[in-house]
Amino acid sequence: MLNKIDHLGVAVKNLEASLEFYAESLGLGCTGEEIVPEQKVKVAFLPIGETSIELLEATDPDSPIAKFIEAKGEGVHHVAFRVDNLEEALAELKAKGVRLIDEKPRVGAHGARIAFIHPKASNGVLVELCERSE
Amino acid sequence: MLNKIDHLGVAVKNLEASLEFYAESLGLGCTGEEIVPEQKVKVAFLPIGETSIELLEATDPDSPIAKFIEAKGEGVHHVAFRVDNLEEALAELKAKGVRLIDEKPRVGAHGARIAFIHPKASNGVLVELCERSE
Repeated sequence: MLNKIDHLGVAVKNLEASLEFYAESLGLGCTGEEIVPEQKVKVAFLPIGETSIELLEATDPDSPIAKFIEAKGEGVHHVAFRVDNLEEALAELKAKGVRLIDEKPRVGAHGARIAFIHPKASNGVLVELCERSE
Repeated sequence: MLNKIDHLGVAVKNLEASLEFYAESLGLGCTGEEIVPEQKVKVAFLPIGETSIELLEATDPDSPIAKFIEAKGEGVHHVAFRVDNLEEALAELKAKGVRLIDEKPRVGAHGARIAFIHPKASNGVLVELCERSE
């Protein structure tokens, strides 16, 4: 069902300060920034190997990222796995009784089709499934 | 400096329960388990694409994994990046003023040479650098 890790979503308080670590200290390249209004986040993309790191800064105190940082501090917010067919993957998980946040795909950063598995199903890790037309 | 994400370390309370999600629900294969006495953890390895997920269960209440779960709950404990030459990477980071937990390599699971960057340097994410002779 899963091809690879598509990206790691990392919740940060300040995108510019975090880019200093990831870009300047670790030497990763940042390929762009994007605001995702539905999630109330500003995202920076840093490819590494076949995957990428997405730094997520809240644009509003109501953002899921602001709430995550309040509860747990900065850190890895979600792990996104690439799938070929998101509807099929969701149907398979549902048939196995896996609890989902999204039963139907919605739109994420860069126009990807995404859906989240409920963290109660995955031992605390927020897991995203992600389909891209490249 | 960094080649790829070598693995994601995920802190879990119960390895068998977590394997049910990652192996049975998500369909990842588990290539083995190992006890790392220095870290007081039992580790299960699940390759995906060029990287892998390492599920980490504490074998002792003193384990860093037990303390992490107590403070933050289950979730991604560390992100490990593969490097070709760990000494060179550590020297480069030190020259840039990046705070390190390990100034010299130590031995991790599967005999890898590893070192951790201090989470204060990396905005809350515990970053491991990992060199392997394959």
